[in-house]
Amino acid sequence: MAITNKLRIGILGASGYTGAELLRLLARHPGVEIKLLTADRQAGKPIAEIFPHLGRLDLPIPVKIEDADWSGVDLAFCCLPHGTTQEVIAALPLHLKVVDLSADFRLTDIASYATWYGHEHRAPELQKQAVYGLTELARAAVAGARLVANPGCYPTSAQLPLMPLLEAGLISADDIIIDAKSGVTGAGRDPKQQNLYAEVTEGIHAYGIASHRHAPEIEQGLSEAAGKKVTVNFTPHLMPMSRGILSTIYVRLANGSNAEGLRQELARRYAGEAFVRMLPPGQAPATRHVRGSNHCLMNVFADRVPGRAILVSVIDNLVKGASGQAVQNMNVMAGWPETTALDQQPLFP
Amino acid sequence: MAITNKLRIGILGASGYTGAELLRLLARHPGVEIKLLTADRQAGKPIAEIFPHLGRLDLPIPVKIEDADWSGVDLAFCCLPHGTTQEVIAALPLHLKVVDLSADFRLTDIASYATWYGHEHRAPELQKQAVYGLTELARAAVAGARLVANPGCYPTSAQLPLMPLLEAGLISADDIIIDAKSGVTGAGRDPKQQNLYAEVTEGIHAYGIASHRHAPEIEQGLSEAAGKKVTVNFTPHLMPMSRGILSTIYVRLANGSNAEGLRQELARRYAGEAFVRMLPPGQAPATRHVRGSNHCLMNVFADRVPGRAILVSVIDNLVKGASGQAVQNMNVMAGWPETTALDQQPLFP
Amino acid sequence: MAITNKLRIGILGASGYTGAELLRLLARHPGVEIKLLTADRQAGKPIAEIFPHLGRLDLPIPVKIEDADWSGVDLAFCCLPHGTTQEVIAALPLHLKVVDLSADFRLTDIASYATWYGHEHRAPELQKQAVYGLTELARAAVAGARLVANPGCYPTSAQLPLMPLLEAGLISADDIIIDAKSGVTGAGRDPKQQNLYAEVTEGIHAYGIASHRHAPEIEQGLSEAAGKKVTVNFTPHLMPMSRGILSTIYVRLANGSNAEGLRQELARRYAGEAFVRMLPPGQAPATRHVRGSNHCLMNVFADRVPGRAILVSVIDNLVKGASGQAVQNMNVMAGWPETTALDQQPLFP
Amino acid sequence: MAITNKLRIGILGASGYTGAELLRLLARHPGVEIKLLTADRQAGKPIAEIFPHLGRLDLPIPVKIEDADWSGVDLAFCCLPHGTTQEVIAALPLHLKVVDLSADFRLTDIASYATWYGHEHRAPELQKQAVYGLTELARAAVAGARLVANPGCYPTSAQLPLMPLLEAGLISADDIIIDAKSGVTGAGRDPKQQNLYAEVTEGIHAYGIASHRHAPEIEQGLSEAAGKKVTVNFTPHLMPMSRGILSTIYVRLANGSNAEGLRQELARRYAGEAFVRMLPPGQAPATRHVRGSNHCLMNVFADRVPGRAILVSVIDNLVKGASGQAVQNMNVMAGWPETTALDQQPLFP
Repeated sequence: MAITNKLRIGILGASGYTGAELLRLLARHPGVEIKLLTADRQAGKPIAEIFPHLGRLDLPIPVKIEDADWSGVDLAFCCLPHGTTQEVIAALPLHLKVVDLSADFRLTDIASYATWYGHEHRAPELQKQAVYGLTELARAAVAGARLVANPGCYPTSAQLPLMPLLEAGLISADDIIIDAKSGVTGAGRDPKQQNLYAEVTEGIHAYGIASHRHAPEIEQGLSEAAGKKVTVNFTPHLMPMSRGILSTIYVRLANGSNAEGLRQELARRYAGEAFVRMLPPGQAPATRHVRGSNHCLMNVFADRVPGRAILVSVIDNLVKGASGQAVQNMNVMAGWPETTALDQQPLFP
Repeated sequence: MAITNKLRIGILGASGYTGAELLRLLARHPGVEIKLLTADRQAGKPIAEIFPHLGRLDLPIPVKIEDADWSGVDLAFCCLPHGTTQEVIAALPLHLKVVDLSADFRLTDIASYATWYGHEHRAPELQKQAVYGLTELARAAVAGARLVANPGCYPTSAQLPLMPLLEAGLISADDIIIDAKSGVTGAGRDPKQQNLYAEVTEGIHAYGIASHRHAPEIEQGLSEAAGKKVTVNFTPHLMPMSRGILSTIYVRLANGSNAEGLRQELARRYAGEAFVRMLPPGQAPATRHVRGSNHCLMNVFADRVPGRAILVSVIDNLVKGASGQAVQNMNVMAGWPETTALDQQPLFP
Repeated sequence: MAITNKLRIGILGASGYTGAELLRLLARHPGVEIKLLTADRQAGKPIAEIFPHLGRLDLPIPVKIEDADWSGVDLAFCCLPHGTTQEVIAALPLHLKVVDLSADFRLTDIASYATWYGHEHRAPELQKQAVYGLTELARAAVAGARLVANPGCYPTSAQLPLMPLLEAGLISADDIIIDAKSGVTGAGRDPKQQNLYAEVTEGIHAYGIASHRHAPEIEQGLSEAAGKKVTVNFTPHLMPMSRGILSTIYVRLANGSNAEGLRQELARRYAGEAFVRMLPPGQAPATRHVRGSNHCLMNVFADRVPGRAILVSVIDNLVKGASGQAVQNMNVMAGWPETTALDQQPLFP
Repeated sequence: MAITNKLRIGILGASGYTGAELLRLLARHPGVEIKLLTADRQAGKPIAEIFPHLGRLDLPIPVKIEDADWSGVDLAFCCLPHGTTQEVIAALPLHLKVVDLSADFRLTDIASYATWYGHEHRAPELQKQAVYGLTELARAAVAGARLVANPGCYPTSAQLPLMPLLEAGLISADDIIIDAKSGVTGAGRDPKQQNLYAEVTEGIHAYGIASHRHAPEIEQGLSEAAGKKVTVNFTPHLMPMSRGILSTIYVRLANGSNAEGLRQELARRYAGEAFVRMLPPGQAPATRHVRGSNHCLMNVFADRVPGRAILVSVIDNLVKGASGQAVQNMNVMAGWPETTALDQQPLFP
C-alpha cells in the first residue's frame, strides 16, 4: 500500500488500556502518523514510562487536553470517560474526524441515554450525526461519517451473531438471553479494589445483573434488526483474564428454523469478512483463539430443549471490542483496506 | 464431641484431587481413622510424595485395589472412574458402608445410564439400594443408606436452588437454562493436553454443549421436584480457576410469583442449614467466597424481561461438589453433627 | 482443650487481608472471643459486607479506632500501617497484650528504623520492651512478652533457614543472596494500579531492588545469629499468585561443611516443630504445598559451583508470614498448645 | 521490501508451541512461503484443528516426517525433541538450510553433550558445521551458516547481558548466580501432570536445581566470552505464566568497575540493536512488557553488598527464546532486514 499523504492522528486519553492498544496497532499502520496524545494525570510523562512495552516507539509526549493543538491533526480517537466525552468532542474543530470509544454517542435515543447514564445528553445535535460503527454491519455509513461511535465490547460480541438472525427472521425477538463472560481490562486501568489481582484471580461472579449499561446498546441494534422493540436478558460476569469476551446466547427458534439453518445464515452473511468467522460445526469458540487480534469467532449449537439454539461468540474486548474496531473504522473512513495494521494473528498460548 | 469407637475409613482412588480433598478434611475429623488407601499407578508411594501438602499426616501407604484388606474398614469413599466403580463396589464386603463419588449410582434409571455412559449398568440391583446424597434435600434417606451416590458438582450447584422452587411451584419447569462456569479440577488429575496450564489460563470456552453427562442427573432431581419430566438447557464452561462452580440459571416465573418471592422461599427452606446460605438482596455470589469450604451461596435477581428471574449459586466443586458433601453424608450416616470436620472458613483471597 | 476463661480479642485494622486472615483462623479457636474490631473507612459496615466469605461468623461491627472501648479486651492484634501503629499502640491501656503485625517494633535499632522508614521512631521506650516474634526461635521471650513484633513475611521465610546455619557456623555470613518471589497480598488491599489483575497476571518483575525495607529486618536476625554484622543481597519479585513466598537463598559454605550437613542441621533444629519441616533430599519446596497453612517447608541443595549451596523455603505470606504466626505467638503468650486453631492442612490445588 | 523469489519453508514438528509461533510470525513475512509441515501424531489434521487461532491461514496439511517431500523446500525450521533431531537433520538433503530449535547442535563439545543428554551424539560431523545462533552476538557466522543451532530460552536470557560484560572484563567469571523464572510453555505441549493448570496456577517452585541441561549451554557462551572455563549457578523456577523468562543475575564486580559502568557497557553494546534494549536507570524489566515480541529488555542495579551488582533481563521464551530468534536468524541467513515479520509490539496487558 503506497500512501503519500499520511493521516495525522490524535489520541485523547492515551494513558488507558484502549489508548495503549491503539498505539500498539497503529505502530504498524503505514498510513498514519501520530501527532498528538493527551493524558490527564500523566501529562508530561513519556509513553515509555506509562507503557514500558511501547518504549521503542517514537511518540509525542502526552499533554493535558486543554493544551492540545488540533491544527496538525486530521482524525482523533477519543478514549475518555463517558459524560466528559460529549463536551470534549463538541468543542473539537470541525475539520477533525472522530472515532469515539466511549458510550457517549452510541445511543440514538437521548432519553434512553439520560435514563441509563444519569444526566441529560450534553451534545444532542452532535449525537444525530454520529454513526454506530459496528463495521461489518454499518460499512457504508461509517465510510461517510465525521463522528463514529465505536461500539461497546459486550454489544459487539452480542450483535454480530444476533443481528443477522433477527433480520432474517430465524429467531424469536422475545426470548434472548445473553450470558457474557469478560476479562478485566474492560473495567479500565483506574485503581479499584474490586479489580486487584487478589480479588479477581481464581474466581468468577456476575455483576450489573439486569442493570448493565450495555443492555440498552445491545437492544438498540437488535431492535433495529428485528424491526420491533427488543428487550434482552443480559448478564455479564467478571473472570480472571486480561482480555476477552465470550457471549453464550440462548435463543428460541422461529417457526421452521433450526440450529443448522442459523449456522448457514451467519456463515453466508460473514463469508467475505476478514475478521468475523463461523467455525466448523461442533467447534466451540474460545477467547484464547482471538487474543490480541481483531477477530470474532462464532458458532451455533442445537439445544436438547426443542425449539431452542445456543450461539457462542468470542472477541478480544480491547481489539474487536474497542481499539481494533476503531482502527477498522478509521480504515473504512479513509478508504484503506480494512485489514491495514490489523493483520496480526492471535497470540496463543 | 466425644467419640469412643472411631469409624475406620478406606479411600479407593486416593491419588486424585477428590482423594486428596478427603484426606485434607478427614485429617481434622475426631471420629475417623484412615485405615486403607488404594491407588493404581501410584500404589506403594507414600502420600507425602503424591501430595506433598499432606506430608505431615500419618497415613497408610496406598495399595492396589486387588491387594486391599477390607476387614478393618467400616466405610469406604470411592473416588474411581465411572464404569469400573460399579464392579468394584459390587464386589465389596457387605459390612462396608459406601459413599461413592463417581457417577455410577446417581441415575436411578439404568436405561438412561446406558444411553449417557455408553454401556449397560453392571450392578443394577445395587443401584436400587443407592441413595442420591444431596444432603440438605435427602437427609433422612442418607441416614439409613448403605450406599450413597454422592452428587456431581454441577448438579449440586443447580439442584440446590432449583428443587425447592419447583417443589413450591414458583417457577416454570419448561424453561430452565443453566449456564455453568467451572474450575479445572472438575476434569481430574490425569494429564490431558486440554487441561495444561497454557491451554487454560486467561481464557474461557464452553464444552459438552447439549451433551454433558451431568444434564440427565440434573434433570432427574428437577423432575422429581416438579412432579413431571423436566428437560433443561445445561451449558458448562471451562475457565481458569482450580476450584469453584458458578451457575447462572435463567428461569420463567410461575403465574403470580416474582423474584423476591423466590428469594424468600429459598431463604426459608435453607434457614437452618449450616452450609447453604441465601445472600442479602442484591449481593452477587462469588466463587472466591466459598473456596475450600463446604458452603453454597445463592441469590435471586429480578430480570428486566417481564416474567423472568435469574438465580445464581456458587460452590467449591471439590468440597460441596464432591469430597465435602461426601464427608457431610458420612456424618449423617454416622449420626454425628453434620458440620464435623467441615467447619473451616473459606480461604480468601 | 478445656478453656474456661476465654481471651477477649480486639483486631485493629480488620478490613485488610491480614485482618480477614485472623478472623478466618480465630473462628476455630476454642480459647478466644472476638470483642472488638476497628476499621477506618469501612467502620460501621458488617464484616459480611467487607468480607462476604466470612458472612457466617457472628462478629462485632467494626468501629473507628477513636471509638474503641478497650475495657473488655485482653489482647489486641494490630494490623495498621507502619508509622501510625507506634502512636496507636503507645496509647493503648497497659492491661492489653499486643501482637503487632506492622513493621513498627521489629527493628531494635531505632536509628536504623529512622533511616529505612523516613521518620524518627515515635515510641522508643515501647520499642525496648518489644519481642521479635519469630516463634520457633524466640519462644521463651514471646511467652513473657507484653508486646510482640510479629515478623515480616520475607524475613520469616529467610530467617528460618538461615539463622540456625549461621549460629552453627556452617555458612559464611558474608555472601548471602536472597532471591524472593512473593504473591500479591503482601502489598495489601488498598487499590493501586500496579496491583490490578491485568498488571500482575502472567508476568513477573523484581522490585525494591537493594532498597526493600525487609532487608534491615532480615539482617538484624542474621547478625544476631552470626554474632557479627551481616549485609545481604535481598531481591524481591512480584508474581501472579495471591498467597505465598518462595525464597531461593544462595550461600557460601563454611570450611568443612557441605550441603548435606546443612540439611541435617536444619532437620535436627526443627525436628520437633509442628510447622517447620525439612523435606526429603531432592524434593523442591513449592508454595502451593503450604497455601492457607502455617507451614514452612524447606530444603538444601548442593550447587555445581564448589563451595556453594542453595536453600529454598516456602511459606504462605498471610499465614506463617503474618496472621498465622500472630496466632501462634498468641498461643505461646497464653500458654496454649501452639497449634491451636492452626491445624488446618494446606489447600491444594 | 520487494522480494521476488520467495524462500520456501518447511517446519518439522509443527504441532507444538514453537511450531505454532513460527506460523504466527511467518504469516506476516513477505519473503517466505510455507510449503511443508510435519507432525507426528497429528499428521493429516489441518492446522485449523490443531491450532484454531491460526484457522484463517492457508497452510499445507501436516504430514508424517517420513512422507515429507523436500524437493520444494529451501529452508527448514526443526522443532523436534532432542536426540531424534540429530538423525532427522543428518538425513536432510544438502540443499536445505536449517534452523534447529532443539538442543542437539548447541553444545560444541560432544563429550559434554553425551554427559548431559545421556547418549553419544549421533551426528558429530554435522555438529562441527553448526553455528550457535545468538543473533546479536553471532551475526556474521549466522549469515554464512547452513545449520544454525537456535539458542535455548534460558541461555538467551542469560548470555545477552553476561557475555558483553565478561568480554569487557567488568565482572568476575567465578561468581555468577542466575536465578531464572520461566513460564510454562518452555515445557512444551505434551500432556504432563506437573504442567496441568491446577498444578501450576498460583504457585512457584524451583526445579532442575544444579542439574538443568541449559547450564552447560550457558557456560559455553560465557566461557567463550571470558576466555576461560566458567561454571555458573543456574536455578530455574516454574511459575504461572504461559510466556516469559526473567533472569535475575547476581555478579561480582571486577576491580574498578561499578554497576553504572556495567549499564553503560551494555547500553553501548546494544545501542544499534532493534530487539535488545537497556532500560533507563532504575526501571525494572518485566516479562509482561515483552510478551509476544522478539524483544529483550535488561537493566543493571547496584547492590547494597559492596562489590556486587544485579542484572535483570526479560524475554518471551517462545519468541526471542525460540521461534522469534529463529526467524531473526533466517532473516540474517537470507540477507533480509533482521526485523522482517518481527516488528509487532508486545501485547500488554
